[in-house]
Amino acid sequence: MKFSFRPTEGAFYELFTRAAQNLVKGTELLNELALPGVEVQSVSERLTEVEHDSDQITHELYKKINSTFITPFDREDIYRLGSLLDDVMDHLEAVGNLLYLYGLTKLPSLPREMHELVNVLDQQAKLTAEAMPRLKSMKDLEDYWIECNRLENDGDQAYRMLLVRLFSGEYDALTVLKMKEVADELEAACDAFEHVANTVETIAVKES
Amino acid sequence: MKFSFRPTEGAFYELFTRAAQNLVKGTELLNELALPGVEVQSVSERLTEVEHDSDQITHELYKKINSTFITPFDREDIYRLGSLLDDVMDHLEAVGNLLYLYGLTKLPSLPREMHELVNVLDQQAKLTAEAMPRLKSMKDLEDYWIECNRLENDGDQAYRMLLVRLFSGEYDALTVLKMKEVADELEAACDAFEHVANTVETIAVKES
Amino acid sequence: MKFSFRPTEGAFYELFTRAAQNLVKGTELLNELALPGVEVQSVSERLTEVEHDSDQITHELYKKINSTFITPFDREDIYRLGSLLDDVMDHLEAVGNLLYLYGLTKLPSLPREMHELVNVLDQQAKLTAEAMPRLKSMKDLEDYWIECNRLENDGDQAYRMLLVRLFSGEYDALTVLKMKEVADELEAACDAFEHVANTVETIAVKES
Repeated sequence: MKFSFRPTEGAFYELFTRAAQNLVKGTELLNELALPGVEVQSVSERLTEVEHDSDQITHELYKKINSTFITPFDREDIYRLGSLLDDVMDHLEAVGNLLYLYGLTKLPSLPREMHELVNVLDQQAKLTAEAMPRLKSMKDLEDYWIECNRLENDGDQAYRMLLVRLFSGEYDALTVLKMKEVADELEAACDAFEHVANTVETIAVKES
Repeated sequence: MKFSFRPTEGAFYELFTRAAQNLVKGTELLNELALPGVEVQSVSERLTEVEHDSDQITHELYKKINSTFITPFDREDIYRLGSLLDDVMDHLEAVGNLLYLYGLTKLPSLPREMHELVNVLDQQAKLTAEAMPRLKSMKDLEDYWIECNRLENDGDQAYRMLLVRLFSGEYDALTVLKMKEVADELEAACDAFEHVANTVETIAVKES
Repeated sequence: MKFSFRPTEGAFYELFTRAAQNLVKGTELLNELALPGVEVQSVSERLTEVEHDSDQITHELYKKINSTFITPFDREDIYRLGSLLDDVMDHLEAVGNLLYLYGLTKLPSLPREMHELVNVLDQQAKLTAEAMPRLKSMKDLEDYWIECNRLENDGDQAYRMLLVRLFSGEYDALTVLKMKEVADELEAACDAFEHVANTVETIAVKES
């Protein structure tokens, strides 16, 4: 009898890839917020749908872990990576949801630094989606995590300048508080992408 | 010579159970805050006592880990679970302490959404206390972690609506800032219960 | 043929020690902020330099992990400890940077509780720098982590009293928001030192 672990292994990489591709959908929706005359409610609702898809993928991944005897790498690491990818989506969804809930859409436009942060997230999402299939060979991953960390530094810088802008006196205190909540979720998403990259690095270090 | 590991093993489950039962005491104290004419200082002081009990239990657990040769599951996981249960209590204690320190008790009443969050915490505490003894058999734990995560979603929703309320213009900026600190601790407690549940899930996945 | 792992092992302890000594440089720079007539821009710039040194040390550590066959303790733990030491520095650097960016230096003086927090950080940094070389023998580390955790409690207390002060009505809402950002970074640095101590404890528990 021939015994193959390949089909099962493949499923893990596919689930990670799908999870990351879903994050790209999320950041592309956030990018729409920069368009003139955008309907924030519609963006928020579509983000919620994309977030549900992520939950579904994470759920499939966990079931796969539980039903697989030999996993391609540590069970716990698979678990952690799945959960961290899911965390990113939670923050992306929160951004759309808070903008809508707080009625921030009545502002003529969002601060430029917010769009810069969204742009960083979009790049991180694309890099992550491209890197996930390479988990199979564990090759050519170093560029991904270095670049993802570099982008997180850019995001950090944009976040700091966003706060300087928010605290400049341009907005009233309540608007500042609302926008700060949104800014915090954007920054948390940026961080969460870095956590994904760090976990990939840890896995690669272990397997090497 | 008969050699038994049982008594020692039992001690771990008992310590986890006591830690979680102590969290129930904590959330019940927070529930008192909804009662008319409650003395917040007294609630805060009793929360501090309960928090000291938690520290004591965590300390006993760590000593037990250090003095036990064969632990019922990974030393590190026992350590982490104990430390996460302790984290929940720190947040519960902070809620009472901040309400008292900031003099928020002079408000006619706290926002309804705050009580909803306390209610979620109370349910999470009770579920956790019921689940801890089941660590022994590692059976029937799935319902616990699924429900605990579901409750965390409810808590998240209540937290978001609480912020909408706080930012609505009903309160002055400094009161908003104070209540937001309390809200953040409530939400962090909710999250911390989820981390406990996730750790139980990770342990169960490993042991399965 | 005599085969020795010593030289390589030594390099790890030396890198941890250098990382922690760099944190002492960071907290000493923050201490300068209490001096009359201090130039915040200069302090902020020197903190950024010290932070770059930390990045360099962390980078060397990661390279060392990757190029070493047998590490003195778990690869992952070395990784985590290095990354946590780096986290502390990120928060220290943020404190100086935010004070400068927000122009908080135009205030006659910073609240006393802020200096108390810096003082706690300075003690934690010194304790950590003294403890790192003891990782080699894994002896006499308990006092370090107990004291580091105790200091974190002091820091927590100082942080709470700082918020009470900020919310007292002494400052306008925007100044409160700016100082709260600085306060949060100070508190996060305090927490980050505790995470370092907890990781040392976890390593010691495993090795014992």
